Amino acid sequence: MVVTSIAFIGLGAMGAPMAENLRKRQFRVTGFDMRESARAALVAAGGQTADSAAAAAEGAEALVLMVVNAAQARSVLFDAGALEALAPGATVILMATCPPGEVETIADAVTNTGRHFVDAPVSGGVKGAEGGTLTIMVAAPADSFAKAKPVLDAMGDKVFHVGQKPGQGATVKTVNQLLCGVHIAVAAEALSLAQKAGIDGKMLFEIMGGSAASSWMLRDRGPRMLDDEPPVASAVDIFVKDLGIVLDAGRAAKAALPLAAAAHQMFLAASGLGHGGRDDSHVVRAYRALNRKPDNDA
Amino acid sequence: MVVTSIAFIGLGAMGAPMAENLRKRQFRVTGFDMRESARAALVAAGGQTADSAAAAAEGAEALVLMVVNAAQARSVLFDAGALEALAPGATVILMATCPPGEVETIADAVTNTGRHFVDAPVSGGVKGAEGGTLTIMVAAPADSFAKAKPVLDAMGDKVFHVGQKPGQGATVKTVNQLLCGVHIAVAAEALSLAQKAGIDGKMLFEIMGGSAASSWMLRDRGPRMLDDEPPVASAVDIFVKDLGIVLDAGRAAKAALPLAAAAHQMFLAASGLGHGGRDDSHVVRAYRALNRKPDNDA
Repeated sequence: MVVTSIAFIGLGAMGAPMAENLRKRQFRVTGFDMRESARAALVAAGGQTADSAAAAAEGAEALVLMVVNAAQARSVLFDAGALEALAPGATVILMATCPPGEVETIADAVTNTGRHFVDAPVSGGVKGAEGGTLTIMVAAPADSFAKAKPVLDAMGDKVFHVGQKPGQGATVKTVNQLLCGVHIAVAAEALSLAQKAGIDGKMLFEIMGGSAASSWMLRDRGPRMLDDEPPVASAVDIFVKDLGIVLDAGRAAKAALPLAAAAHQMFLAASGLGHGGRDDSHVVRAYRALNRKPDNDA
Repeated sequence: MVVTSIAFIGLGAMGAPMAENLRKRQFRVTGFDMRESARAALVAAGGQTADSAAAAAEGAEALVLMVVNAAQARSVLFDAGALEALAPGATVILMATCPPGEVETIADAVTNTGRHFVDAPVSGGVKGAEGGTLTIMVAAPADSFAKAKPVLDAMGDKVFHVGQKPGQGATVKTVNQLLCGVHIAVAAEALSLAQKAGIDGKMLFEIMGGSAASSWMLRDRGPRMLDDEPPVASAVDIFVKDLGIVLDAGRAAKAALPLAAAAHQMFLAASGLGHGGRDDSHVVRAYRALNRKPDNDA
């Protein structure tokens, strides 16, 4: 069965443009989101919607899940009846960021109905979703991967088949978040030490951004740490959650992750200080609370 | 006094090409190194040498110190008599990686003799030293900086005046090492978690190197973590030392540095496991000791 009809669940900041990219590649897409406003936006853009997840999934050959977390994925598949509504032999593509262990459990439940399951989390943010340039980290048996490939190619231009076993894609995404979270926190730690010595933060990030000390996050988030209220690209609480998933994955695999654990504490502290909804560069506030920025800061 | 004659102490892998770049810019350079072989190499390359640090410094208008650490800098300046041998009003340029507090102490002793002191550590490695493309992080009063500027421009193309107070250059270099050390360790931590789940390390670094999870160190050191015996670009024990300097600077400034502290433990463990002289990507061995790489690693 070649996939031509797709149910797309989760029309958020990333889901909406991803569904739109599938439509542009001539797939028949029926979208659903719990929020009426998200469904209305898709209709306004010329898309199809349904009144429930099960109605969207009715007879579809693929189901893409771009929901918030694993609990929502389970709810859509099992409680709302989307799984049973799909065509027999259909392919479920889970693209939300979920703990690897939960992905394995969901995969078992899906494949037990004779359908395919593809673990396919993404990175690249809203920009990547809009441009169809997402990185997609796919784990699935070869035949399931082959069925999903044309669908994935419509949404991302860096599609990696990282393993045969569902949960391995989620692991790679987890590792991605481990690196991102630690890189943001360590940029804040570096700034904190430099400011204690009266070094100008802007010059610091200019020097570090052009040296072997650079990271993508340092160049992106560093300058925002110098703003009092940067626009929220991604919130502190996203890393409270995602580094939590990282540490849960470490527990499940019995892997010690000392740097991820320390970084998680700093994001937790920033959230506890009241910055949970602010831009994740605000993790610097946790360092500032510990290491007061001197008043005579240059 | 415009600087035309320079004593250059410390003709190692970086010092030798830096001295050579000064000669190419028409400075009169007299080099000295404790190792006879290093002096002989400079002579073979057409350079001038002297039999002692004091002899090299005799009447020179500037003294560049590219020695191993602060103890060697003190020994050359104060015990070997190089400081007193310099012309009155000469400029001492300390380019070795030293703890900020020690740089302040040395600066005081130098300026008490009426001479200038310029704190000017570098980053960019042997490649930057050879190409004259070093990043130089300079702290000195404006008049001292102006005297040293033409000398520094001969060795680096990114010369930043980070502050007026000696020790601030060393702080920026310290912050640079904080970032580099944590970025290497977290790349190893990421690999360690991924390999537990049977993810191929080569593919992991390919995906991460092209995403927001990337760092300069991840792209450079990551692939080397997959080699059993990579050539030694910089040794594990260099980061045992440099992250030690980072933590000493944190103690002196009363700045909590939780990520740097955790990374230091991993480099210490790698050294304790017998890998101190191996390439710093071998910090992955400390993670491997903690989180055994499964035998069925994909």
